[in-house]
Amino acid sequence: MSLEKLLAVARGDVPADLLLQHVRLVNVFSGQIEETDVAVSGGRVAGVGRGYQAAKIIDLQGAYLAPGLIDAHVHIESSLCVPSQFAAAVLSHGVTTVVTDPHEIANVAGLDGIRFMARSSRDLPLRVIVMAPSCVPATSMETNGAQLEAQDLQTLLDEGTVWGLAEVMNFPGVVGGDASVVAKLAAFAARPVDGHAPALTGKQLNAYAAAGITSEHECTTVAEAAEKLARGFYILIREATNAQNLRPLLPLVRPENSRRICFCTDDRIPADLLDEGSIDFMIREAIAFGVDPIVAFQLATLNPAERFGLHDRGAVAPGRFADFVVFDALDDFRPRQVYVGGELVAEHGAILPHVALDTPAIPPGLSGSVKVDWKSLDLRVPARGAQIRVIGTLPDQLVTEERICAAEIVDGQAVADPDRDLLKMAVIDRHRNSDAVGIGFIQGVGLRRGAIAGTVAHDHHNLVMIGADDASMRRAAQAVIELGGGIVVVDGAEVLAALPLPVAGLMSDLPVGEVRMLYDKLLEAAHRLGSPLHDPFMAMSFMALEVIPKLKLTDQGLVDVEQFKLVDLFV
Amino acid sequence: MSLEKLLAVARGDVPADLLLQHVRLVNVFSGQIEETDVAVSGGRVAGVGRGYQAAKIIDLQGAYLAPGLIDAHVHIESSLCVPSQFAAAVLSHGVTTVVTDPHEIANVAGLDGIRFMARSSRDLPLRVIVMAPSCVPATSMETNGAQLEAQDLQTLLDEGTVWGLAEVMNFPGVVGGDASVVAKLAAFAARPVDGHAPALTGKQLNAYAAAGITSEHECTTVAEAAEKLARGFYILIREATNAQNLRPLLPLVRPENSRRICFCTDDRIPADLLDEGSIDFMIREAIAFGVDPIVAFQLATLNPAERFGLHDRGAVAPGRFADFVVFDALDDFRPRQVYVGGELVAEHGAILPHVALDTPAIPPGLSGSVKVDWKSLDLRVPARGAQIRVIGTLPDQLVTEERICAAEIVDGQAVADPDRDLLKMAVIDRHRNSDAVGIGFIQGVGLRRGAIAGTVAHDHHNLVMIGADDASMRRAAQAVIELGGGIVVVDGAEVLAALPLPVAGLMSDLPVGEVRMLYDKLLEAAHRLGSPLHDPFMAMSFMALEVIPKLKLTDQGLVDVEQFKLVDLFV
Repeated sequence: MSLEKLLAVARGDVPADLLLQHVRLVNVFSGQIEETDVAVSGGRVAGVGRGYQAAKIIDLQGAYLAPGLIDAHVHIESSLCVPSQFAAAVLSHGVTTVVTDPHEIANVAGLDGIRFMARSSRDLPLRVIVMAPSCVPATSMETNGAQLEAQDLQTLLDEGTVWGLAEVMNFPGVVGGDASVVAKLAAFAARPVDGHAPALTGKQLNAYAAAGITSEHECTTVAEAAEKLARGFYILIREATNAQNLRPLLPLVRPENSRRICFCTDDRIPADLLDEGSIDFMIREAIAFGVDPIVAFQLATLNPAERFGLHDRGAVAPGRFADFVVFDALDDFRPRQVYVGGELVAEHGAILPHVALDTPAIPPGLSGSVKVDWKSLDLRVPARGAQIRVIGTLPDQLVTEERICAAEIVDGQAVADPDRDLLKMAVIDRHRNSDAVGIGFIQGVGLRRGAIAGTVAHDHHNLVMIGADDASMRRAAQAVIELGGGIVVVDGAEVLAALPLPVAGLMSDLPVGEVRMLYDKLLEAAHRLGSPLHDPFMAMSFMALEVIPKLKLTDQGLVDVEQFKLVDLFV
Repeated sequence: MSLEKLLAVARGDVPADLLLQHVRLVNVFSGQIEETDVAVSGGRVAGVGRGYQAAKIIDLQGAYLAPGLIDAHVHIESSLCVPSQFAAAVLSHGVTTVVTDPHEIANVAGLDGIRFMARSSRDLPLRVIVMAPSCVPATSMETNGAQLEAQDLQTLLDEGTVWGLAEVMNFPGVVGGDASVVAKLAAFAARPVDGHAPALTGKQLNAYAAAGITSEHECTTVAEAAEKLARGFYILIREATNAQNLRPLLPLVRPENSRRICFCTDDRIPADLLDEGSIDFMIREAIAFGVDPIVAFQLATLNPAERFGLHDRGAVAPGRFADFVVFDALDDFRPRQVYVGGELVAEHGAILPHVALDTPAIPPGLSGSVKVDWKSLDLRVPARGAQIRVIGTLPDQLVTEERICAAEIVDGQAVADPDRDLLKMAVIDRHRNSDAVGIGFIQGVGLRRGAIAGTVAHDHHNLVMIGADDASMRRAAQAVIELGGGIVVVDGAEVLAALPLPVAGLMSDLPVGEVRMLYDKLLEAAHRLGSPLHDPFMAMSFMALEVIPKLKLTDQGLVDVEQFKLVDLFV
């Protein structure tokens, strides 16, 4: 597509490829609804206005036309799908651009993993902006698959793989001026740098801002978000599966500050993406809450485009990508049609059959990511005392308590005691063949029998298991390893349900609808085994994350997060 | 200034250089006034909030503190002062950053001229962002001092002299896809590109937008500005000496679109800068008109910072430059103190004596820019007919009429006839020693006797003269040449007033106050000779600009701008 051709179409000298007539344009620049036509050429908007000719003319008869939606921060891996199937899920909801942090796969496969995500996204109708994962590994109290330093991230930037620096979760390192963190910030000084600093405030927040970090998606209250916004952070309001900040934060949005606010989904499982939606859901909720509809669209289009310097999208205007959402009512936004680059890609909530959503071949490094020998796995815990530290989960929270409980000792071994909801938990290095296994005990997951296991375990994504008996846990490990990664529910020798995640142990290459079905079966099986949790797999995946207080378990052992050190199981 | 130090100050571990206590901060992010303190370290804001320690503490006792103002588009040359003296004028009005287009000096001295402006600005307390002049020369129907093609502008970009592409005045070339213009746009595809397309509308405007041009400062009506804003242009509302669009355009500003609107001054003479002000004047007027005060400051701070991607300024927030304006009332904004990089540079409307405003030595290429031999100058016009085309000026407008008048013929020569306000005008190539002289006649300037002459003549800045008799005109030419460039008023053999402009024939290196005094004397002398015009020199400077209709004069002769061709003096 030459500029000369686009200009000729814009002038009206040459017919457009496509003309969408009689639209009510959601003009995010003027803040008004504009009754007009939109002419498209070579995938771009050529002109807005009446009187264009085109090879194909569609009379939209007064339907609304908004810019394609932008998700300002999402981990595609959390959909448990490869980018093509993630795209299938979100495109039909009107999302045409996502800014993604391939943080999960980076922890498994380093630069190769990041490049795989970029390569898998390149030819999709979904426009994927890849950010460089900034904190791999999360800490030194775990074994993960890669360590990324400033020069690695610089390489990604130089080769054009990444657009900016993804959420800098090591906020103590930023605030403290840690040399490794400062080097990463320096490499991305002229690029967008996303933040992640829950509850940071006052002088510490000033330091985090002074370091050049310019967004934040971890706010949970209006007061927290207002302070961060006032210090120069874009506020990315998040509505994830496991962290729902939209309704609490909507009162933040006012005409005088709304330009600095965006929407993002962060982590959403397939069921939520398919049933509830993505950014479209957030727009619906915002409008229902009382946010001006055009402001709601700005939060999902122009604002993230400005925040990330993506001046080729985020609005329907000459020269920008012809990415559109067609819909019928402002008070119940449901994308009826979705266009990307002037091509209709989804209609009535479904991706069109002709749309190419190819997944590239999975490189061996990603398909063989689970390096554990289950046969040599030893989950026994010789009793060295009577009292143990137990991870106490709290309903719908990622933080845990440290509980001191009496150990259940059988034949000199500390074992699970389902009657006290005291389950065994293990985290096994799956990256380096190190035989490192951390074993602990956990309350709150509620299994009466059997075990659950999986290779999704933030951020290192080691093999994590929770079970009522060692036999079930060993069987679960075997099942996951045989899948080449995935999530399973096991009862004794029987595998009750399994979701294979052959791509880095994080993602399936099945259609998103099938992934969702298999995940539902996992949930059902876990509930049958007695877990009362809405989603015990997601809960489990965060019990190994040693940066969220209080007590967590990695392959190195129990971590007291507040003390930021390994502690003994026995008190 | 290391980031480590800034972080230490932000954390409160190390005292700040400066603490401004008890300010009412104009927070352009939140849109609110915030009662707080501001800590500064190494020229940057380290922290906003209470409880900082500092080497120097100033209690501002509730005064307002706003970010330093940004002029989104200005030709420094129009102040008739070198950058240091321009800085002296605007800093005291709270302007701490200007985005400048060195278009005038580029037409005289090409790349060397642009580099002189950049070099002269580098060490000033005023932050000067230099844009690359996009249209040098304006047309081929003139002789100017340089021709800048895409590769020249690319050189400026590569060497870091320029930040973006300045107003692309050749809008027919843009819309038509002219190869030379397209090449320039391609070179600046990833940079801000400013527009200049008066009255462009509809499909032509769509094409201009599709080309990637993203601002416009030539709007004169709300309807024009609203259309351009809706198509994606930032609207830079201009309040120049000779083009005052502020009051007509203020009704454009609404909460839902104001983020895409900025303020600029474009061209202001010293008297206006000193008496009325700069961007501060526009804020005052906007607030008096009824614009929300914080929105008015956003137009002059955050908005231009966002528009140009200048994320290191435009707000008072950690990590950004410590550029501030202190003032006492929102309803009568008068900068009481101005800080740049945490240093107090101006107070009570005057630059502080210790502030370094050095002007670098003027290179010979710029001081010897007037290459005309006045002795060989021949201003006679042998009569070749009875009727002539006359430039008819209109009060306070840059456009002219073409009038057909009877020539005044004396001894076979067409001459001036002050009784009919028919004056002779000459435009003489001063760049290339070509002896090219264009001669015509003009009505509306009103001199009864004598002549005015100058080397400020948009855009080529040749030697332009208007006079009642040839002797005065020749004397005026001699005077200008002997000054090495400037503006003069002459009556017969006597030079009544003179303003030397030794820098490229465009700028004085005298203090701005003296330039203003000398300019006042020029005006007084011209008025004494009978001109009723408010400013006959500015009027004259646009009578040689062959891109503004209808009839103009260059050194090549009379130009019919609408036909875009040279026409004969005699009909």
